This record gives sequence, structure tokens and C-alpha cells, in this order.
Amino acid sequence: MTMHTITPAPQAPAVPSCGRLRPLGLGDVRITGGFWAARQEVNGRHTLDHIGSRLESEGWLPNFDLAVSGGLPAQRRGREFSDSEVYKYLEALAWEIGRTDDDALEERFREVVGRVAAAQEEDGYLNTMFGRPGQGPRWSDLEWGHELYCFGHLFQAAVARERTRPGAGEGLLGIARRAADLVCEVFGPEGRDAICGHAEIEAGLAELSRVTGDRRYLAQARLFVERHGKGTLRDIEWGRKYFQDDVPVREATVLRGHAVRANYLSAGAMDVAVETGDNELQKALRLQWERTIARRTYVTGGQGSHHQDEAFGEDWELPPDRAYSETCAGIGSIMFTWRLLLAGADPRHADLIERTFYNVVATSPAPDGRSFYYANTLHQRVPGAPADPDVTSPRASSSLRAPWFEVSCCPPNVARTLASLDAYVATADSDGIQLHQYAPSEIRTTLDDGRVVAFDVDTDYPADGRVTITHVSDADEPWTLSVRVPAWASGASLRIVSPDFVQQRTVEPGMIEIRHAFRAGDVVELDLPMAPRVSAPDSRIDAVRGCVAIERGPEVLALESVDLAPAGVGDVAAVALAPDAQPVERQGRVWVPVVPLPLDDAAWPYGSPSGDIDAEPIEVPLVPYHEWAQRGPSTMRVWIPSSS
Amino acid sequence: MTMHTITPAPQAPAVPSCGRLRPLGLGDVRITGGFWAARQEVNGRHTLDHIGSRLESEGWLPNFDLAVSGGLPAQRRGREFSDSEVYKYLEALAWEIGRTDDDALEERFREVVGRVAAAQEEDGYLNTMFGRPGQGPRWSDLEWGHELYCFGHLFQAAVARERTRPGAGEGLLGIARRAADLVCEVFGPEGRDAICGHAEIEAGLAELSRVTGDRRYLAQARLFVERHGKGTLRDIEWGRKYFQDDVPVREATVLRGHAVRANYLSAGAMDVAVETGDNELQKALRLQWERTIARRTYVTGGQGSHHQDEAFGEDWELPPDRAYSETCAGIGSIMFTWRLLLAGADPRHADLIERTFYNVVATSPAPDGRSFYYANTLHQRVPGAPADPDVTSPRASSSLRAPWFEVSCCPPNVARTLASLDAYVATADSDGIQLHQYAPSEIRTTLDDGRVVAFDVDTDYPADGRVTITHVSDADEPWTLSVRVPAWASGASLRIVSPDFVQQRTVEPGMIEIRHAFRAGDVVELDLPMAPRVSAPDSRIDAVRGCVAIERGPEVLALESVDLAPAGVGDVAAVALAPDAQPVERQGRVWVPVVPLPLDDAAWPYGSPSGDIDAEPIEVPLVPYHEWAQRGPSTMRVWIPSSS
Repeated sequence: MTMHTITPAPQAPAVPSCGRLRPLGLGDVRITGGFWAARQEVNGRHTLDHIGSRLESEGWLPNFDLAVSGGLPAQRRGREFSDSEVYKYLEALAWEIGRTDDDALEERFREVVGRVAAAQEEDGYLNTMFGRPGQGPRWSDLEWGHELYCFGHLFQAAVARERTRPGAGEGLLGIARRAADLVCEVFGPEGRDAICGHAEIEAGLAELSRVTGDRRYLAQARLFVERHGKGTLRDIEWGRKYFQDDVPVREATVLRGHAVRANYLSAGAMDVAVETGDNELQKALRLQWERTIARRTYVTGGQGSHHQDEAFGEDWELPPDRAYSETCAGIGSIMFTWRLLLAGADPRHADLIERTFYNVVATSPAPDGRSFYYANTLHQRVPGAPADPDVTSPRASSSLRAPWFEVSCCPPNVARTLASLDAYVATADSDGIQLHQYAPSEIRTTLDDGRVVAFDVDTDYPADGRVTITHVSDADEPWTLSVRVPAWASGASLRIVSPDFVQQRTVEPGMIEIRHAFRAGDVVELDLPMAPRVSAPDSRIDAVRGCVAIERGPEVLALESVDLAPAGVGDVAAVALAPDAQPVERQGRVWVPVVPLPLDDAAWPYGSPSGDIDAEPIEVPLVPYHEWAQRGPSTMRVWIPSSS
Repeated sequence: MTMHTITPAPQAPAVPSCGRLRPLGLGDVRITGGFWAARQEVNGRHTLDHIGSRLESEGWLPNFDLAVSGGLPAQRRGREFSDSEVYKYLEALAWEIGRTDDDALEERFREVVGRVAAAQEEDGYLNTMFGRPGQGPRWSDLEWGHELYCFGHLFQAAVARERTRPGAGEGLLGIARRAADLVCEVFGPEGRDAICGHAEIEAGLAELSRVTGDRRYLAQARLFVERHGKGTLRDIEWGRKYFQDDVPVREATVLRGHAVRANYLSAGAMDVAVETGDNELQKALRLQWERTIARRTYVTGGQGSHHQDEAFGEDWELPPDRAYSETCAGIGSIMFTWRLLLAGADPRHADLIERTFYNVVATSPAPDGRSFYYANTLHQRVPGAPADPDVTSPRASSSLRAPWFEVSCCPPNVARTLASLDAYVATADSDGIQLHQYAPSEIRTTLDDGRVVAFDVDTDYPADGRVTITHVSDADEPWTLSVRVPAWASGASLRIVSPDFVQQRTVEPGMIEIRHAFRAGDVVELDLPMAPRVSAPDSRIDAVRGCVAIERGPEVLALESVDLAPAGVGDVAAVALAPDAQPVERQGRVWVPVVPLPLDDAAWPYGSPSGDIDAEPIEVPLVPYHEWAQRGPSTMRVWIPSSS
């Protein structure tokens, strides 16, 4: 185990004190252009403004003012967890301020913190939903009340602020510490033997402990983790697995129940396992991740196949048309998986993170950053109606992106993730840097022993597979640059161009280590093969039997009916891939040959198998899944029936 | 249109005043043995007792006593619709008393009616959930309060009693009339322009009008039907289609939203359409049925593919593993479809009713009649745990039958349906009798013109396809006996044996009319081909692409892992049908050859297509779907992957 001793701590969302890799934060890595910079720009300019406005107009932020003015509970608006959206917004602001140093955002941040601070009670309690006359008593509804969940997000916001503006965060950090002290008092070893119905405080407390050095918060996080699976929460229609209160974390074999809760808990449990040196717990979590990825994850990286309980289905239960794949579950999966990557340096973790970034996180927001997918279906059967921008959608599963939801966890979750995205690009270990994600970026950091490392990444990825790494400083001694070759990238090649030598070789998927005393001007070129690929599902994923998905680089592609219309076909249900179809790239898009299916409107849809398809193929273009539904209502499918 | 003028009215659950066919009730048709008689016996002996005990121990019946003693709302137990279970229990008792004349049940019926009567308020209002100090005001929660829904079941119970014991029903009928009068006052043309969130009162009022002759109830039913689709109910997460309040009934093109609500509303709308001569409405409903059957119905006849909102999915969205197929939705479908059959004499309606009886209604109760399926999955991925008989299951989707549910609509719905099953066997028109369902039975009735018709049906159906109809009275004039050849029964044959002649011929699916002056001893023999059949789904039913279902007669068959164990295979996920597999019958079971699938536990389940299967087939037996999960926990699938 490697202890990380670098100070100041990186400006990153999870900063373990030890592990194979340590994160590089916003101060070390700056995304300078390309796919993600464009999204960060929209996020910073539009999404944060949109969220801030909605939090005001929906009353969720004014609830804090009402707490002061005495307007609670009479005038309170929003669901029981609405406080948490304010905290996620604060976290997003904190990262964005760290990233851009924007004065207006700084002013807004301080204003919101002031309003939150005013609502905190003497003893540290802070929640607009509980504890006042006419409200439920504090902690009276641990299954559904979300008080500790809200605190978890408060703590993460305070941590983000403290890491990006050390000391300046004292306002928010003080609020968080007072709340955390109360939690330790009420739920500590001598206190109530209870957990929150929605995990989140575990990671929040562990991170708060990392920032403050107060081990009591870590101990409390550990208590909450260990109390899961003891059945302290009530049984409900979906069973205690909904809350991950069915099996102790270290005994579980797979993620189950509510997919956001499950991932948040796993992230928090990893934090606890790492900080307490609990290798057994780490191993259990790694094995749970393995099975979850092998059997319970969509090809997009999305997780959760039940709408009803927003939950994981059983192994292999991955219906594309009822994919819930909540945006927040994808973000939770990144949080959990990132911690596994830091602990174990397994590139498969970065593979999944990349997949989830491109196909879940990038899918949620519209190009204007003002509407979002909550659920991310992989198969849209009927063209949806555009969401009314003036209406708060009661529906999580809207078929087009909606500006806001009655449960609006996803927009601020996307915002905080995009604002902190630079921190997921690269990590360091004692001998070098690991490049996990490819984006135009500048990396300037020092290794543990003080060696300065500086290089620029230039790429059009994922449009193009060439990644060019140009060193901009001279190293006296060799160090190791590791670059990730994704699992899908068979046939990748690497070229190293230095005044001394030029080396070119093919490289297998995994981490490729290049140890060298790089000099300014040295170039490392990675070429990832971007030809579209045909992927078939495991035979146990019943819902997509007989179908294939087309992928290109990290992007999953989709067929939209709007692209069938020129061929006179109205619906994605009316075509299958032509026999032995191979996708080709042309005019910047991927095309596949399809054949119309012989559809007949029988009175009863079960009977003798229909005959062979005998029709002329037509070529149709696909879109990256994250771009779907940007050209109006359409039907869509990721998994395309194969007629061969 | 034929007006029915027979008196007394048949003892049947729906007695329209006109239509192509008129029902024959319990007084005309008696099931005497076989598949259904066994289930009726269990229902009458055990299920009614079980339900009666649970209604007491859960407090749902004592709620009525509390209404009198002043114990409401403090001591009230059960959900907002629990009154309705008492009414469905009363309806089941009424039919069972009509069927068996059982003294103990009669005594129990009167006792329960007395307790209900005592709780009715001065002005006719009757509900244990609303209207008292500390409760919500009457009619204050039309979306979820279920007050009118409960009344609908009250009316159906009163109608059942009045039809089976005319006059003796005055107690319950009086209660129902006073309640209905209040409803007409509050929600009449001059009253509140509103509907109930759960349809049911529409059919209840229409039937009450038929029994009492009071057209005001019919007018009120019509008002409620016509008010659907006007958006008088609030929008909710699942949209107003959940309540069928999205589109007016006569403009809708398919059943949608909550599957029980949709079917109950359609049944009530048919009643209204028939009684008011509204052919446009009838036609709309018939077309909705057509599309619902063609695109939104499981091979079992089950309906509803969403767990979340217990609702129909989109066209072709029929996942077997997430099939909700609520037992009550199947019963609602029978109610709606039966009304269509009576109005239009289309044998496809009786086909669907048969399919639903064998594969939904028969599946729900355990052999002992004391536990039930609420949801009827077509694919069980993990072996379930047996339900604790002492616990009320919070889960509708338990993988094994459960004795009772927090929402326990299904057990009494099954009970009232089984107790009135004789009424679905045959109908009459002006020239004869139509035999729709095959069970050992005695049919003794008179045609409209007074001709006496009497015959016995003998059969081991569905174990055997031979149905023998023996006439036991002499007709002076010819009349028409019609027998249904189900759509699946290609190659059926009919034999008529009379002293005058013997005639044998093959017959096509549909209604086969035999016009003859039958004499006692004349025999009509129908032979339905019972060889197991392989059914493939429409290519648009994505969730079962590449699979087939095996059917035999009216029964859908299933593969259970308990039958794979002798071959050393643990799970239904591990096999596919052998190429070109044909099911065979042997030792009273249907067997199919299967091959083990090459399963590999890849870290990521999407990749290159796997190769051909090359393994020795093994023969495994199937079970009728309605018998599944009777041998302990098992995995199960109706749709079996085809490897050819």
C-alpha cells in the first residue's frame, strides 16, 4: 500500500490517503478543448445558471430562508430530499470556481452558503423538512426522510470547497462539521443503531474526515457502512435490498436494490476500507463490482433495470426498453469505480468510467445544458413529446430531456460531475503518471519525490483515435508514463518520437508503461483503432437475444427513426440488420445495411415462425447514443435485431 | 340487436338486456367435474374460509364495526381500498351460495352484510376511510381514495346476491341502492364533474341498473364513462393514462395505463354502450380490444408489463421476466371480453377468455386455495423463497404464492370468479345454445320461445381433447347447438351420432353450428387436436426474440429448473431448445430436447458473437404454466431460447 503524502491535497472529489494511485486534481490537470471541454463550458455557463434559477423558483433554496423566517412547514415546497439539490449545486459551484475562478459564481456561492448557514440550528441540525412544530420529528423516518443523505451531500460540497479554496471554505466547512458532530453524537457507537434509507453520508463523512483530519467522522462512516444489512430499516414492498439493508456490505456478492443507493454506499464503503486498511472489505467490494459489471450493467455503462424501485434487476435482467439507467446511478458507478481504480490501478475500472462518461453522463444533458435525461432508455418505442420548458416534469422516464423534475437529483449531479471532470483524467504514483481518459489537456504536476512532470495531450478523441502527448519539460531522470489502451482497442499502436530514437509498436489493451527521461518536445503517439465494432450480448441477457449493438471507440451507437425516414421507414421496429451486416464509416458517420422486416398485423401475435427475410438492404446512418433525441421525437434502439 | 326477455334473469355476473348472445347462469349450467370443478371445490371449501379469516385478522372487516363503535380513524387498519375486499368477498359468497346452497356460507353472508349495513351512514355514504373527524373529507382524494371504486364492488356484490337469491338480497341491495342514490346526487349531471381514479363503479352502476330497473344508475355510469379522458384527475408521474383519464373512451385506440383500471373501465363502458344502444362506443371498444390482444397481451392472456404502475406497456413491450400480468388484470380482461362476446358472438373473445382462465386465473391460487400469485411472471430468474404463511406480504411480485398481501385484491377476485365460473360456459340466442368452454357439465335451459334444451358435456379437457355432448331431452323442432373450435385447434373433427345418421367431418376454428332436432341419446363429439405446438412471437416483441413457447390445447407450458436437475442442469438459463426441436407427449407430460448453452463468465458480457452450439440434446419435461412453483423454489421460463 502506498501512502500519499503530497500537499496540498489535490483538488479532486475523492482523495484517499493511500492506494496504488493518487488523484491529480484541477490544479494538476486542465482539459483545454474537445468533447468534454465543450460540455464543461455549457455546464459552467448555462447549467449552473439553470439549476440556480430552478432551485429558487421551485422553492427549494427559499426553504432555507423560510427556516429562518418561520415559514416552515406551511410554505415549504419540494420533496423531502430537496435540500440535497442545493448542496449538490454548491458542490458543482465549488468545482467550477476551482476550475475557472469565476467571480460571479464565487459571489453566488457565498450567497447560497449564507442562506444555508442561517438555517442551521444551534446544535448543528440542518434540514428544512423535519423537526419543527407541524413537521415530523428529527430522524423519525430513516427509511424515507433522507436527512443523513442530505448531510452527505452537504459534506461533499464542503469538501469540494475546502479542496479548491482551502480556508475560504471555512463557512461551509464549519456548517458541515457542526452537522457531522451532531451525527456522530446521535448515531455514534453509543447512539442510535441506525442507518439512512439512502446511502450517501458514508462517503461524505469519510471525505470530511480526509479534509479535516478528524478520524471520528471516518469512524462514524464505518459504523454506517457496517450497520447495513442488519435490517434496522423496515421491510418494504421491494424488500430491504432496496436500501442495501439485506446483507452486510462485506458479505454481499453483487450490487443490488436501488442503483444510486447501492453505488453511493459502495463508494463510501471503499473510502472506509481504504482509510481503515480493511482489505477484506476492499476485496468484497471489488468482487461485487466484477459481478455487477459482468451481469448487471448495460452496454452503455448504465445501471438499474427496474423503473419501479429504480433498482438493479437480477443477473442478466437488462431490458433495453425498460432500462432505467438513471443518470445518478451512472455517476454513482463512476464514484465507486474511481475509488477502485485509485486503490488497485486496474485499467478495467477506467474502461468502465470512460464508457459511463460517454454513454450516460454525456447523454443526460441537452446541448444547451438546460434539460436532462433522468432515466436513459436504450430503446424508445414511441416518439416522445417534447417536454414543456415551463413545467416541472413529474416523470423520471420522459422520452425527451426535461428541464426539471419533481425529483431532480440528476441535473445537479451532472453539473458537479462535469465541473470536476478534469480530476478523472490522470493519476500519479511514485514513479509517474497514468493517463486514463483522453481529452485535449495540460498536465503539470510533481511526483512524490518532487520530480516535475509536464505534458500536453492533443486529440480529437473520440472522433479520431490518435492521441498525441507532447512533453513540455525536461526530466533528469526517467519516469513512467502509463497510457490506457481500452479493452475494445485491439490493434492499437504506440509511437514514441524523441531526438534519440523513434519507436513504434502495437500494444495490447491494458496500461502501457513507457519509462523514459522525457525531454521537452518528446512525443508519445497512441493510435486507438476507431473502426465501428459489432457487439453481441451474452446469451443470458434474454432481452436482447438475437440483437447486436454497434460501438465505435468509447461510444455506443444508436439507430433513430429520424434517420430511417429518408428510406421511407417510419419506425426502428420495422428493420433488422441485413445478414452479415458490417458497419462502415462514411461522411463522418457510421452506416449499417438494414432490411425491412415482414410485419403483418395478425390478430394474435404468437404463432408459426415467420419465414426468411428476402429484401434489398438499405444503408442507414447511426448516431452516438449520447446524441440521440436531439432532432425531435424519434424512436430509437441501441440493440438492433440481426437477421443473420 | 336482440333484446333478451327471459325471466328470471340468469344468475350470471353480467346480464345485458340485449346483444347477440344472452348469458346462461348458474341455474342453467352446472360444472360437474374435471379441471374447474376441482378448483371450485377448493375455492368454496378453503379459499372463502381463508379470505374470511384474513379479512378479520387484518382488521379490514372489523373496520366496519369500528365505524359503528367510534373506533375510526384511530384503530383503522388496511389500505384505503380495503373495504372493497369485503365486498368482493361478499360477491364470492353470493355466487358460491347460488352454486351450492351452503347453509354455513349463507349464515356468514348475512352476518357480514349486517356488519356492513351498520356502518352505512344516514345519507347512504359508506366508507371506513373517509369523512370522520381525523379522516380526509368524503371525495377529497378522487385520484387515490378509491371511494367510488369500493362502491362499484359493493354494487356488484349486491347484484350477485339479487340474481342468485332474488328478494333475499334486499338487505345488501338496499345498502347498494342508498349508496348509488348518493353517488347520483353528488356526481350526477348537476353535481361534481369528476371520476374515480380507479374505474369499477361504471360496471357496478350499470349492473345495478339492470337488476333494479333504475335507469338513473345507468345514466350515472354513462356519465362516469364519458368523463374519462377529460383530465379531471391530477397529472401524476405515470401520466393521466394511468387512470384512463388521458383520452376519452370513445376516442381511444388501445387499452393503456393501469391494466386493471383499463379493463374494468372497458367492461363498464361496454355495459353502458350496450344498454344505451351506443354502437359507436361499442365499436371503439371492440377495436381497442383487437389492438390490445394483438400487441399488448402475453401468450398466457395476461396483461400489464410494468411493475411500476401495474400498467400496459407500449405496443410489443412484453418482457417475460418483468411481466406483471396481475391476476386482477386477467380477471378484468375476462369481464371486458365476456361483454364483447355477448354483444358480438365472436369466438375469438371466448378464445381469449379460455386462455386467460387456464393461464392466469388457474395460475394464481395454490392447490390448497390458501396462497396466491398477485403478479404472474413468465420468467423466474432466481428461485424464490417460500412465503411465510403468517406474514402479510408487502410484495405483489413474490416469486412464490403468498397467503395475503398488503394490497390483497387478487385473492377475493379469484374467489368471485371461480364461484361464478359456470356462467361463462355457455350462452343462448334465439335459436340455440353456444358452448364456449369445455368442462364436464349439465346444461338445462329454455330458449326464448320456450323450447327446452338439455344436454350433458363429458370430457377430460384439457388433459384430453375429446368433448362428448349427450342430449338428454327430445326436441320437437330443430335448434342450433354451436361449439367453439379454438383458433389453435386446426384439424379438429366433429362427429354427430343419432339413430337417424352418423356424420363426421373436420371443422375449422370458429363457431361450428349444428342445427338439428336433437333427441335424448343423440351425441355430438368434438375432437380437438391436443398435440403440443411450438409458437413463435411476432418479431416486434423484442423481449422474446429468438425464443418459442410450447403450448398444448389451451395451456401454455413452462420449463422449470426442478425438471432440469435430473440432467445435472441447475438453471433454466443454461439451456436452449435443440435445433429443430419438436415437443413430444410421453407419460402424460410434454417433453422437449434441450442443449446446454456454452456459458462463459466473461468480465464484460458484450463482445464477439459466440459460436455454434455443439452438444448432445437431453429430453426434459415441461409443466402447464398454471402448475409452476408447486414443487418448491425453481427458476422457470415460458419462452425458451431456440438454438436453431
